[in-house]
Amino acid sequence: MINIAIDVMAGDLDIDVNIYGALDALDDLDGSFSIFLVGEENLILEKMKFKKNKYPQCVHIVHASSFIKMDAKIADFRSDKNSSMYKGIELIKKNDADAFISIGNSGAILANSLTILGRIKGVSRPGFAIPMPSKNGVKILIDGGANADAKKEHYLHFALLGEQYIKTIFSKKNVKIGLLSIGEEPSKGNSLSLEAYNFLLEHCSGFIGNIEGNDLTNDKDVDVIVTDGFTGNIALKSIEGLAELIRGSLILESKKSLKSIFGLFLLKSSLKNIYKRLDYRQYGAVPLLGVNGLVYVGHGKSDQATVKNAVKAAVLGVNSQLFESLKESVAKNIVNTRNII
Amino acid sequence: MINIAIDVMAGDLDIDVNIYGALDALDDLDGSFSIFLVGEENLILEKMKFKKNKYPQCVHIVHASSFIKMDAKIADFRSDKNSSMYKGIELIKKNDADAFISIGNSGAILANSLTILGRIKGVSRPGFAIPMPSKNGVKILIDGGANADAKKEHYLHFALLGEQYIKTIFSKKNVKIGLLSIGEEPSKGNSLSLEAYNFLLEHCSGFIGNIEGNDLTNDKDVDVIVTDGFTGNIALKSIEGLAELIRGSLILESKKSLKSIFGLFLLKSSLKNIYKRLDYRQYGAVPLLGVNGLVYVGHGKSDQATVKNAVKAAVLGVNSQLFESLKESVAKNIVNTRNII
Repeated sequence: MINIAIDVMAGDLDIDVNIYGALDALDDLDGSFSIFLVGEENLILEKMKFKKNKYPQCVHIVHASSFIKMDAKIADFRSDKNSSMYKGIELIKKNDADAFISIGNSGAILANSLTILGRIKGVSRPGFAIPMPSKNGVKILIDGGANADAKKEHYLHFALLGEQYIKTIFSKKNVKIGLLSIGEEPSKGNSLSLEAYNFLLEHCSGFIGNIEGNDLTNDKDVDVIVTDGFTGNIALKSIEGLAELIRGSLILESKKSLKSIFGLFLLKSSLKNIYKRLDYRQYGAVPLLGVNGLVYVGHGKSDQATVKNAVKAAVLGVNSQLFESLKESVAKNIVNTRNII
Repeated sequence: MINIAIDVMAGDLDIDVNIYGALDALDDLDGSFSIFLVGEENLILEKMKFKKNKYPQCVHIVHASSFIKMDAKIADFRSDKNSSMYKGIELIKKNDADAFISIGNSGAILANSLTILGRIKGVSRPGFAIPMPSKNGVKILIDGGANADAKKEHYLHFALLGEQYIKTIFSKKNVKIGLLSIGEEPSKGNSLSLEAYNFLLEHCSGFIGNIEGNDLTNDKDVDVIVTDGFTGNIALKSIEGLAELIRGSLILESKKSLKSIFGLFLLKSSLKNIYKRLDYRQYGAVPLLGVNGLVYVGHGKSDQATVKNAVKAAVLGVNSQLFESLKESVAKNIVNTRNII
């Protein structure tokens, strides 16, 4: 039986979203896995009263007396081993859980994962693998913000982790890997990206060269886009900001005339389809690739349906043996380049 | 009389856009300036036959026997002193023109501007100042891509140049300067942005701290956003890519049903208003701040109306004494920090 642990205390909204979202996933997947709800036991029991639980044998509560706040600084949580996040990740370490999910403070998830689980042997830095909205199929950006500073070899690690993730979860073959830069020519970039370019060219067979910011969301034939976490985070948030601006402007503009209100009404389902593609909620949560265990991180604003999708993503990850395949790929590819690095 | 030079041979489209766009600007501004059309003389004369020229005394042709291709590499143009771009920039150096405009290869414009004009005394690196789409008012991002690698002092130079530009052209007071990073807290960033943060805090009175990618296009109260040219270019192109994705998706989605087609039709003017804000065309061209002269760079895909706006932007820059005010501000502020740098 697959065991999934979830940090119930995390997120910007009420903890309901985590508990009820997890139970909804259990319903959707016909009780085919076990869920560990990690958090304040009495609080969880209280909340459970208001939700029908079709698979009580699949639901376990793991008590945690504290939790890590969304805006906590690293000094605040470093030594807190009683937090729901720490205890949840520990369940992987103890082999009680196959995957862990949290919609909490992503810096804390990263730090605690590194402390408790460590990294896959051969990987220097883990990275967030973020699915990008695009016309056809899925592509991912890695690193979405785990590490602000990168060295050339980290790009190779991101490339191999991302490639294996795309292969395992999205069943793609011949995965194409691009480097985020400021022009297609090999000579375009900053000093770090130029170093990374040459390193990838030498060690990464799926490397297709530089890609640009607009390729993150257009038809460009690329599956994995590697970048440092600083650039990755800024690109993602820039895209998020514009999506918000257009959505807000459409509502505002359309209020200016009856004609526009009616137009917006007629276009509603089309717009919904478009924004669905831009929406993190469909993916539920993204994996933190490279740590020594399966860790999924969701948006702090995730609602119940999003948490449900996150739990289902984690179950799919375990079922697809994502973690084992990542470890194998790293052992085969990265360890081979280690003497060169 | 104000003198504007334009590189007629530049751009992805026919050179018509430059010649006719410049003449349109002359019409709009009632012949209140002189224009130097720099390029192949016979070609220009031929094209001029098909356009009414209300102010012939304001139009001068400067012959250039070659031109720099849009995809030229630096080695291709470094020594070409007969190109329309080189000759156009030279007109500023010779005091024959007050400003130069090109919708050509931006790397070549940067390189030639540095070779011919040099930098304003005190400025280490020039930067492209890019207006950002936002709900209220204008904010600019600098550097939009002139220099891929930056040092901490460049951020201060970008801040001061951007501040003066916003003050002079958009009449803003108390200009607020933000640093593009991955979190609002001073501790968030990569090693370079953290250095820049502390340097700006010490030397830049308008500095308000870190801002994030989504703040580029949201309501955040900031006027000048400083970043290195690598991050700036990727953020801008990411935004451009999403704007294209949404525009394309709207058309595609709306074709799926008659209801949606009608909805799109009714919303057309609202959508136009939104995309106008996102469109580089309204600004015509952006200034390359920090070189020793007024240089405007436009998008290679600029059409006639965009070139008209570019010429008008250059006229406004000269009329507002933008260059003089930049020089003054740099002399007052940057030279003072020089002994510390």
